[in-house]
Amino acid sequence: MNFPSKLIEDAVTEISRLPGIGKKTALRLALHLLKQHEANTEALALAITRMRTEIQYCKTCHNISDAEECSICISHRRDGSLLCVVEDIRDVLAIENTNQFQGKYHVLGGVISPIQGIGPEELKIESLLSRVEVAAQSAPIKEVILALSATMEGDTTSFYLAKKLKEKGVQVSSIARGIPVGGELEFTDEVTLGRSIMTRINYATE
Amino acid sequence: MNFPSKLIEDAVTEISRLPGIGKKTALRLALHLLKQHEANTEALALAITRMRTEIQYCKTCHNISDAEECSICISHRRDGSLLCVVEDIRDVLAIENTNQFQGKYHVLGGVISPIQGIGPEELKIESLLSRVEVAAQSAPIKEVILALSATMEGDTTSFYLAKKLKEKGVQVSSIARGIPVGGELEFTDEVTLGRSIMTRINYATE
Repeated sequence: MNFPSKLIEDAVTEISRLPGIGKKTALRLALHLLKQHEANTEALALAITRMRTEIQYCKTCHNISDAEECSICISHRRDGSLLCVVEDIRDVLAIENTNQFQGKYHVLGGVISPIQGIGPEELKIESLLSRVEVAAQSAPIKEVILALSATMEGDTTSFYLAKKLKEKGVQVSSIARGIPVGGELEFTDEVTLGRSIMTRINYATE
Repeated sequence: MNFPSKLIEDAVTEISRLPGIGKKTALRLALHLLKQHEANTEALALAITRMRTEIQYCKTCHNISDAEECSICISHRRDGSLLCVVEDIRDVLAIENTNQFQGKYHVLGGVISPIQGIGPEELKIESLLSRVEVAAQSAPIKEVILALSATMEGDTTSFYLAKKLKEKGVQVSSIARGIPVGGELEFTDEVTLGRSIMTRINYATE
């Protein structure tokens, strides 16, 4: 594409660096901004710059935060004895949206993936283990829920963590894998279906 | 969605104001920026701010431009006697990409649409007519090609412009409507097909 203006060309180039946004979409967004009031573009530019430069990561759970420690970690209404281990920040938001979890979080920052060169050292695993150890002296963490993706990498990481955590004497659980709510049996893949039979829930003890 | 950080919430809100980008996509883009180097976010913010504040519109054709007059209007290699009237800047880019047009442009900034409250006064029609008039004294515009959308609004605008332009004594034409190259007859809608028969091209005179 030959742009009639260097300014718009630069803007399109920068916008199209974002994931999932090609040159055509970038141009559409740039022309949209041109039609809007100047203040809107300034607000957008300021918001992303401030976010990038001022954001912090919670020193306890590594979630994004506006302060040294995030709002979930400092909250007294959350159950500190229950810890949910997730891959990244989006998972925290997803679980928070369910309103089903009242414990605290630990954000790993990824999963173990030898192909991508991500080993246990690259993740916040050491921090998780020492967090469990430190807590044991005052307010012990009773259960760690592993809420990682049901992929090979996620399962590998869960297995690794379960082994390490059990050495520290905490109960370890994993979120249930099975048929999604509203899902039909015949359209469920055989691995999921097989696993949902193996890990069936006893009605009497539920 | 409850965000753990006001900074990321602001960024997501601003990004999701863009057309076609919802909260989820905005969050994905924000988290992408957080993972990238700080300089990338700064470059993006600067590019959009500069574009919005420094861009100009060509005083002759109303195309976007870095200077008072755009590169197409000041070019001596373009045929000034041939003028292509388009709706907006994207159409200029689309026609430029075909490499089939060597004349100059006139960007209307929209089409007549009574439903949206856009009348002839809201568009650069007066400027087009006076441009034709002024040119008539030195380097006359011989033909005006109307390249507007094949919608009701586009056709209305073309009809209006054709009437006004003919009064000024210039030849007026419209880009051809018909079956797209590669299109199959049986899948073409009846209006297009009917029009393509009515406006058939004589092989002998082609």
